[in-house]
Amino acid sequence: MKKLFLVFSFFLALAASAQAQSSKTAIDQANRNWITAFNKGDAAAIARLYTEQATILPPGAPMAKGRAAIEKFWQGAIQNGIKNAALQTLNLEQHGRLAREIGRYSLDVPDAEKKLVRVEGKYVVIWKKIGPAWMLDTDIWNADK
Amino acid sequence: MKKLFLVFSFFLALAASAQAQSSKTAIDQANRNWITAFNKGDAAAIARLYTEQATILPPGAPMAKGRAAIEKFWQGAIQNGIKNAALQTLNLEQHGRLAREIGRYSLDVPDAEKKLVRVEGKYVVIWKKIGPAWMLDTDIWNADK
Repeated sequence: MKKLFLVFSFFLALAASAQAQSSKTAIDQANRNWITAFNKGDAAAIARLYTEQATILPPGAPMAKGRAAIEKFWQGAIQNGIKNAALQTLNLEQHGRLAREIGRYSLDVPDAEKKLVRVEGKYVVIWKKIGPAWMLDTDIWNADK
Repeated sequence: MKKLFLVFSFFLALAASAQAQSSKTAIDQANRNWITAFNKGDAAAIARLYTEQATILPPGAPMAKGRAAIEKFWQGAIQNGIKNAALQTLNLEQHGRLAREIGRYSLDVPDAEKKLVRVEGKYVVIWKKIGPAWMLDTDIWNADK
């Protein structure tokens, strides 16, 4: 009986690990889709990666809630000439249909003379699993300097 | 049987609501403790409100992980003359032993002439329930301007 329990626990742990793996894979893919959309200048495609009621909290600007407001914010960033977004996940913790990601980002931001300046910083994203898809639900970041 | 199910569902919903209420109350109290500790200049007491492995992601500074690093960061902020912290929860979502808070903060920060300037901004905190206590596990913020 004890052996059976151990075998059962092992498969349970394996299943949990496989689930965590699949959320990691799905979130990695969603982050790649985010980058592709941003670097193509497609704010509508970025907004579709967020949940309907998502909130973004950008430094130096008010928070924005909902896909229309999020699309407008990223459209503004693209129109301001921000380019070459990159994301790197440092830590991802899954709790059921929720995940908390800590990561680092970099962006090329035009200065007063329109010269692109590299800005690096860090972010926290709360992901929610909506149906089969992992989507950004809360997105906040700030620059290192 | 259907009636029994409805009664059962009602009590289940009531219990869930009571649990959400109690996490809200506990997190409100933890936020008040945070403010009291900060405004007394007690960085060690602030650090004890975070989980052992918590991460803070301050604007204009590298992220800091673990209570010792978190205490050192807040000690620095206090020594730099930052005063009168205030927090306001805008939205709190509980998911089991995890909660995601979105809020607004204000701080009085000394400028180059040591005159205090009001800084307002927004934050996201991921809370974890450790034993009976709700503790800050991920803490990130940025200024509006």
